[in-house]
Amino acid sequence: MTFLFRTAFRKQGLLIPVLNAVRGMSTGSSTPPFTTLSISRPADTITHVEFCRPEKRNAMNKAFWSEMVDCFNQIAEDSECRVVVFSGAGKLFTSGFDFMAVATDLLQPEGDDTARISWNFRQIIVKYQEAFSVIEKCPKPVIVAVHGACTGGGGMDLITACDIRLCTQDAWFQVKDVDFGLVADLGTLQRLPKVIGSRSLVNELTLTGRKMYADEAKSCGLVSRVFPDKETMMAGALEMAGEIASRSPVAVQGTKINLIFSRDHSVEDGLKHMASWNMSMLQTQDLMKSAQAAKEKKSPKDVVFSKF
Amino acid sequence: MTFLFRTAFRKQGLLIPVLNAVRGMSTGSSTPPFTTLSISRPADTITHVEFCRPEKRNAMNKAFWSEMVDCFNQIAEDSECRVVVFSGAGKLFTSGFDFMAVATDLLQPEGDDTARISWNFRQIIVKYQEAFSVIEKCPKPVIVAVHGACTGGGGMDLITACDIRLCTQDAWFQVKDVDFGLVADLGTLQRLPKVIGSRSLVNELTLTGRKMYADEAKSCGLVSRVFPDKETMMAGALEMAGEIASRSPVAVQGTKINLIFSRDHSVEDGLKHMASWNMSMLQTQDLMKSAQAAKEKKSPKDVVFSKF
Amino acid sequence: MTFLFRTAFRKQGLLIPVLNAVRGMSTGSSTPPFTTLSISRPADTITHVEFCRPEKRNAMNKAFWSEMVDCFNQIAEDSECRVVVFSGAGKLFTSGFDFMAVATDLLQPEGDDTARISWNFRQIIVKYQEAFSVIEKCPKPVIVAVHGACTGGGGMDLITACDIRLCTQDAWFQVKDVDFGLVADLGTLQRLPKVIGSRSLVNELTLTGRKMYADEAKSCGLVSRVFPDKETMMAGALEMAGEIASRSPVAVQGTKINLIFSRDHSVEDGLKHMASWNMSMLQTQDLMKSAQAAKEKKSPKDVVFSKF
Amino acid sequence: MTFLFRTAFRKQGLLIPVLNAVRGMSTGSSTPPFTTLSISRPADTITHVEFCRPEKRNAMNKAFWSEMVDCFNQIAEDSECRVVVFSGAGKLFTSGFDFMAVATDLLQPEGDDTARISWNFRQIIVKYQEAFSVIEKCPKPVIVAVHGACTGGGGMDLITACDIRLCTQDAWFQVKDVDFGLVADLGTLQRLPKVIGSRSLVNELTLTGRKMYADEAKSCGLVSRVFPDKETMMAGALEMAGEIASRSPVAVQGTKINLIFSRDHSVEDGLKHMASWNMSMLQTQDLMKSAQAAKEKKSPKDVVFSKF
Amino acid sequence: MTFLFRTAFRKQGLLIPVLNAVRGMSTGSSTPPFTTLSISRPADTITHVEFCRPEKRNAMNKAFWSEMVDCFNQIAEDSECRVVVFSGAGKLFTSGFDFMAVATDLLQPEGDDTARISWNFRQIIVKYQEAFSVIEKCPKPVIVAVHGACTGGGGMDLITACDIRLCTQDAWFQVKDVDFGLVADLGTLQRLPKVIGSRSLVNELTLTGRKMYADEAKSCGLVSRVFPDKETMMAGALEMAGEIASRSPVAVQGTKINLIFSRDHSVEDGLKHMASWNMSMLQTQDLMKSAQAAKEKKSPKDVVFSKF
Amino acid sequence: MTFLFRTAFRKQGLLIPVLNAVRGMSTGSSTPPFTTLSISRPADTITHVEFCRPEKRNAMNKAFWSEMVDCFNQIAEDSECRVVVFSGAGKLFTSGFDFMAVATDLLQPEGDDTARISWNFRQIIVKYQEAFSVIEKCPKPVIVAVHGACTGGGGMDLITACDIRLCTQDAWFQVKDVDFGLVADLGTLQRLPKVIGSRSLVNELTLTGRKMYADEAKSCGLVSRVFPDKETMMAGALEMAGEIASRSPVAVQGTKINLIFSRDHSVEDGLKHMASWNMSMLQTQDLMKSAQAAKEKKSPKDVVFSKF
Repeated sequence: MTFLFRTAFRKQGLLIPVLNAVRGMSTGSSTPPFTTLSISRPADTITHVEFCRPEKRNAMNKAFWSEMVDCFNQIAEDSECRVVVFSGAGKLFTSGFDFMAVATDLLQPEGDDTARISWNFRQIIVKYQEAFSVIEKCPKPVIVAVHGACTGGGGMDLITACDIRLCTQDAWFQVKDVDFGLVADLGTLQRLPKVIGSRSLVNELTLTGRKMYADEAKSCGLVSRVFPDKETMMAGALEMAGEIASRSPVAVQGTKINLIFSRDHSVEDGLKHMASWNMSMLQTQDLMKSAQAAKEKKSPKDVVFSKF
Repeated sequence: MTFLFRTAFRKQGLLIPVLNAVRGMSTGSSTPPFTTLSISRPADTITHVEFCRPEKRNAMNKAFWSEMVDCFNQIAEDSECRVVVFSGAGKLFTSGFDFMAVATDLLQPEGDDTARISWNFRQIIVKYQEAFSVIEKCPKPVIVAVHGACTGGGGMDLITACDIRLCTQDAWFQVKDVDFGLVADLGTLQRLPKVIGSRSLVNELTLTGRKMYADEAKSCGLVSRVFPDKETMMAGALEMAGEIASRSPVAVQGTKINLIFSRDHSVEDGLKHMASWNMSMLQTQDLMKSAQAAKEKKSPKDVVFSKF
Repeated sequence: MTFLFRTAFRKQGLLIPVLNAVRGMSTGSSTPPFTTLSISRPADTITHVEFCRPEKRNAMNKAFWSEMVDCFNQIAEDSECRVVVFSGAGKLFTSGFDFMAVATDLLQPEGDDTARISWNFRQIIVKYQEAFSVIEKCPKPVIVAVHGACTGGGGMDLITACDIRLCTQDAWFQVKDVDFGLVADLGTLQRLPKVIGSRSLVNELTLTGRKMYADEAKSCGLVSRVFPDKETMMAGALEMAGEIASRSPVAVQGTKINLIFSRDHSVEDGLKHMASWNMSMLQTQDLMKSAQAAKEKKSPKDVVFSKF
Repeated sequence: MTFLFRTAFRKQGLLIPVLNAVRGMSTGSSTPPFTTLSISRPADTITHVEFCRPEKRNAMNKAFWSEMVDCFNQIAEDSECRVVVFSGAGKLFTSGFDFMAVATDLLQPEGDDTARISWNFRQIIVKYQEAFSVIEKCPKPVIVAVHGACTGGGGMDLITACDIRLCTQDAWFQVKDVDFGLVADLGTLQRLPKVIGSRSLVNELTLTGRKMYADEAKSCGLVSRVFPDKETMMAGALEMAGEIASRSPVAVQGTKINLIFSRDHSVEDGLKHMASWNMSMLQTQDLMKSAQAAKEKKSPKDVVFSKF
Repeated sequence: MTFLFRTAFRKQGLLIPVLNAVRGMSTGSSTPPFTTLSISRPADTITHVEFCRPEKRNAMNKAFWSEMVDCFNQIAEDSECRVVVFSGAGKLFTSGFDFMAVATDLLQPEGDDTARISWNFRQIIVKYQEAFSVIEKCPKPVIVAVHGACTGGGGMDLITACDIRLCTQDAWFQVKDVDFGLVADLGTLQRLPKVIGSRSLVNELTLTGRKMYADEAKSCGLVSRVFPDKETMMAGALEMAGEIASRSPVAVQGTKINLIFSRDHSVEDGLKHMASWNMSMLQTQDLMKSAQAAKEKKSPKDVVFSKF
Repeated sequence: MTFLFRTAFRKQGLLIPVLNAVRGMSTGSSTPPFTTLSISRPADTITHVEFCRPEKRNAMNKAFWSEMVDCFNQIAEDSECRVVVFSGAGKLFTSGFDFMAVATDLLQPEGDDTARISWNFRQIIVKYQEAFSVIEKCPKPVIVAVHGACTGGGGMDLITACDIRLCTQDAWFQVKDVDFGLVADLGTLQRLPKVIGSRSLVNELTLTGRKMYADEAKSCGLVSRVFPDKETMMAGALEMAGEIASRSPVAVQGTKINLIFSRDHSVEDGLKHMASWNMSMLQTQDLMKSAQAAKEKKSPKDVVFSKF
């Protein structure tokens, strides 16, 4: 995958001298390498997180839940990184829950009475929810690029927590939880209705578990672009990441934070928070640098912004 | 209608030995039969509610408001029923308010001064609102199938309270209240903007009272499928109902409840409620049954779930 | 522009004897004429507000921010006016912020330490936000008609605060703030996600600053209609305004107020407010007048409603 | 109790010719008489509801939960009644849950797996919650008069849903649920913190289950008055009820409704609802009547207001 | 009053060379002098607003409603003023609504049908509400000092919008609206329950209209201090104002703003807003100045802070 | 302190064989010992956390902020612990912020322009807020016992995040932030108004920074009990902790969680969450054990509950 990505990059003429795949993330820290995620740095300011259990169809096992939290917490604190691309290695994006791996948790729960079992289940659910919420809490925008299947319990939960969704023509999406006798509890029911504009469709997908293909995903607004194949999609994702990474991180990260705040508040509350936010952020030098660049007819890409 | 429905069913190869049209609903209870709604049971787990005043173009009269409440409260308590299909008898879905029937309430309101008239109006509005909110409070998903006109004050209020909307190619939709000098007060202004994704369109429809036809209804997301005619729509509705009914009712009803809860809360509150919900619901045997079926490559339809 | 508008009107056969361009607004008041907005009255009940700095590409200068507040406050109190059309004079709708004009505010802020500068910035942001929020607070519906560019910091903020959006085939939209090192702080981040149905697209537009053209604006729901050119758009805007203006102002303005209230509240709270609202508004004579007209097969346009 | 109450009334010089204990409530309806509540009418506009299972220490059995709902729904619709006094018959106010009576529900729950048992428990909890929420939904103020014990699971739930709390010197209060291995789920955890001003005390009471006596109940604000004994308390309750009943019901019931609305909303939302409420309610004749009475130095008690 | 106030000041040894009573407020502006409010400047940083219609028992007439808005808007923009003391001239604090003055509005409302009358009432209510809400919107703390009566419709509305309440031993408080057939609609029902800790008392006061005297006002927390007479109260108010005025205005005004924000939001939302607020406000030099003073064992009063 | 505590315990006759002071907390984990907190186990189910920098007047240094998070996260996961007592070692409870220790953060913030400094400040604030919010997130009740001073920036923030507040007669409380030119940003402005019942007092304390002594703290509800000295307070705290620890942890922890949820939601939302919570928690064996004990007239203390 990394190879493919670099190739795409080269075609865009954006290639940056090859980076240590974990540079920035692991330097100076004792983080053990992840077993389900592969981190690379296609450009100084772009982190590529690849879901990397292709032999298991990128199923979400126990390690995945905690690695996601560690990974995105590290990205959040990495002041060089300005944008993230998330994709899946192998033939498909993800097959969702690895039921064999989590079976012990679900089928032989800890606890000696219903209340205690419930409490333990609750701890697990909250922990698993965090694995996706951490994507939202990370102030750097996350572009997710989906190819092949995005299914199982878990697939939709993951991608609806990302900021921008892209997919290939052969991608399909499914909220499969209902087929497992489960209410999807990791974010789909909360985020999907705020991500696409047809509630009838949201209900149909979550209640019947039917598949949705790329074209419908595009027309309903789940994804904002469809690409013919994975290679062009990764190139497109990278190009978009490059656009974002070239803008002021003060502007980009403040935008993400306020978009998410506003989703969960009234317009008036959103405006109030916005004012309290920008009263300091407007004092950035990035504003003057950007104004100067605009005056000189330069692109934002020609401006050097400090780390954030 | 019942005949048409059964025919559709038969075509799907899903027919279940003919049921007493009111089985399950009326058995052992002294409920007087409804005068505006006809209840049947195309399958053990599916209830068909038909708006049945075709000679009055399915206008909503006084009886309708209370029968809706009784009907959906009964369905909510009917542990056999897992999904509802709602449609209209005759040439069109509904012409909305039967102004002649409710004229006395609206034009000769009770009360001897403005405050008392207002109070009485308020009681009426709240009562009428309940006739549609009861659809949301019922945990079983409701698929509404619209043919011909869905208009008047009332038509849009009704269908936006349902979970999944289907229509025929000849269907049209109209929020006609503004033509009557009325602010739509039974749910359209609250639910329509959360049901479709274009606020500009919501405003246009409610402020001008213009008609919207099937194609626009599909492209804006009001309905999730358009069918060539009523017969195929009813077959499609039934098939979809069958899909839903074959899934675990623990999963299906929990999904509906949490989707509605999440609509009205922040993502974080929705996730919190979800965790408190699923800490017990994950303890269902349906999970194991479904897992077993999946392992054996069976369809959810082959699994027998207990009543809920 | 006024000429064009009248021509459009004449084609619709709706022309009303030429009105003093500022009649109703300025009569009997000492309001100094606006320098950035031109107000006219294509019909007794319709106010046309034209952004009128064509030589500056309709850039938003200091005067603009306060004139918007004055203008819409006056419209709110003008009991004859029932609907507003907002458009831009010259070659494009707006180029957004006039950075030269506001540069002193942004680049040489008042205050002798960061806290005091922040406080002064906050006052400015809140004041600028009000220039668009005043559109929402005005109970008369506002149709915005966009041609050419709607860009800069400010363009999207303005149009998302309007009720209905129309555009020409050559229109394009851009949230350019990110290019200036700025978080858009005048409403786009709050309102755009509630105006269109694809969150992925919202994020893409605000994080990359890319342009969106008319067709995409239509398919994503930002605008509800696209017209071939400005002349036909203005005619279309006027016709739609005429439709709205002919309805009962009790119904129209109550609809706008409750739609906005409901956007920021749960469905249940929206229904509760609706009931408290309509308990008096249902007592209007407009209801009887409308009912009578309907009975006589008349159009709402043939009914004379009192001022509101 | 009725005797005591009448005596109290007589002392106040307010006695009204003896009323049929269920007049107004039952007339023209087929309501079976309640078995746990005794309803009387100490004055035309005052309803006295007495919890009347003294032989069972006013324990809450199955009948109680549904009778409460029926009782307060009837009071809500009784346009003569303007205020309610609620008290307990016998030696104490209430001992709370009648565990023997509800044991079957709690200890042998219906359902064949945890999810289904949970669902059935949820139905029961929601139903029991309604037995107290119905007090809040009734727009007539409810004065609760507590003597002796107010304990068990249920006692605090009941009285915190009332509007005004009075007690005798020998009264004591206890949130006993924690002693039963239960989280209090019928309103105490929601309402008590909004009823008294010390959160530390709320936590102490609910976490330790300790008793609180009349003096502390007064000083923390749980009750607004303490009386030496039940007779004087009932006289005091009646007098206060008389004060309220003599005011315009438009004013009194609108006050209760808006106080409860405001508790659950921001100040700004509360003000907005208030404005939508009073725009009609200010048009009452009661305003003129009251103004006239004030001008003539009459008491509100000398004004005759219409039913509401 | 001014005399009394100066005397009080002198006793505190805080007297500052006599100021033009309207200095700072009116300088360089064409504001006509207020007719119901008298503004003075007992110290450079303290504004004293006196309700000054003693001959009319400080009744609230038409002028009062707009003067309050103008007055507090001016104070908000007056960068010298750091704290406000509000009191009443003459024998009592306020008798509330001047019904004779507002009678035309209330008894002969404008409009030719109920909907239009309602709409006009709504405009009036919203305008009157603003006269008190403006106190909260002003970031400078407002200490209200009550002597004698604080009654009528209006008295409680006014003082609950202030930040700190003081009173004399002879003060009494009354929510009299219910006696006029009115629901208090200017803030009492929204703010009083958030101002004192006993909901039972709130309900009793608003539903019966009974008087509450100084001791109860103190014990229930409505006022935080009771003084023997007006002279000592004014001295106490002034001293407290002096304490506040001597602190960093960055700290003081940020505290008021965040206390009010937090009242209307969850703890979590309040903390989030707090963080966005303080990320800039912590950069104030006032912090270093205060730290330096603390190190040198100086009082905050010895530190000179810039205007805010 | 530990000695004192054990003595107190012994007096209560509750002494349990001496425990390793860090048993349960550190066993089997590599947690380095805390430098600002001392953890002991006066009983198997009670954890005592002592703020232990007496030589620095229990000032909050850098280590404190992260140790609080670690400490309470460990307690949350310690299934033996059922209740926490928090107190301060030495002569006083806490002197708040250790300004010398945090000076570098506050006075020489990281970042090369205002936006970046602001962002870094925000990270620090959020991290510090978490040090107290973690007390609320821990489901075990926390009793805080205050002696001597509870002051500085930080003291009030800490104790308002605890569940039950006790103090000695010589305790005093102060929100000192305003004296440092600071808006208190770690919870006081959010929690104090929801902890005590007089908003006037909240405002006075936070705006003037004045001290409040034990008696006022008791009468305003900040603390629920005052003890003559530290020894009796610790005995009292321990006794109360013993009461709580002897109850079913299912009941106790569910009560804390739902009290906090309900604080931040409407009564209706709180009830809804309560129902979803208890539908499983009512299935605990603790209910039967408690019922059995009650039947046998045993105290909850005689019942053995499983770990939670």
